[in-house]
Amino acid sequence: MSAIVLFAHGARDPEWAQPFEKIRQHLQQTLPATTVAIAYLECMQPTLDEAISNLSAQGIHHITLIPMFLARGGHLKKDLPALLANIQQQHTELTLHISPAIGEVEDVLCSLAQWIGTEFQKNKTH
Amino acid sequence: MSAIVLFAHGARDPEWAQPFEKIRQHLQQTLPATTVAIAYLECMQPTLDEAISNLSAQGIHHITLIPMFLARGGHLKKDLPALLANIQQQHTELTLHISPAIGEVEDVLCSLAQWIGTEFQKNKTH
Repeated sequence: MSAIVLFAHGARDPEWAQPFEKIRQHLQQTLPATTVAIAYLECMQPTLDEAISNLSAQGIHHITLIPMFLARGGHLKKDLPALLANIQQQHTELTLHISPAIGEVEDVLCSLAQWIGTEFQKNKTH
Repeated sequence: MSAIVLFAHGARDPEWAQPFEKIRQHLQQTLPATTVAIAYLECMQPTLDEAISNLSAQGIHHITLIPMFLARGGHLKKDLPALLANIQQQHTELTLHISPAIGEVEDVLCSLAQWIGTEFQKNKTH
């Protein structure tokens, strides 16, 4: 069985999680047979370790991890690899596919630029 | 004259800025007559204050500010309003339109969910 894990930064403010929860719901509607989970680097739960342990306990051993980060810095270059090395040691049965971070995907950047352009034109005409 | 300012978090790693620079370039191609600037909350330059002072010095007094944040937490609820209050005091001629953060826009979340779904399907079939 396969699952998607959206891996986000986390924050002290509970409202911060809303966009990720909305994306999770969109995905869950499109892929009703696939578990879609969210995991956080800090401040929020579950952690990546907790989320993956939960999935593994359900017999899910193929996970696509989506780094929900706009840009690559220390969190993706250092923190995430360290977490993953530890997780792979604990769950040797696990196949983990780490996707590019959303800010590394040309299509995502293009569609963001398009929305920003529309937003700008809307304000200009008001 | 109008401008767009992409307001991003910033990080110590210079590579972190790349996606915002790519979005700026996309926008600049679509809107060649509009100045598109990037400003950072921390670690990188220019700051929001510096970016807006630069634009103002060029005679640009209508600015659409796009918070390049996936989610609303302390940075958008406290830091940004404090910065803006200070900027408005210094630049009374300025009309500032603050757009929703990218993670508050339903269309943006939908297109992210679509891309994630495609990425997941691609891995499943490999």
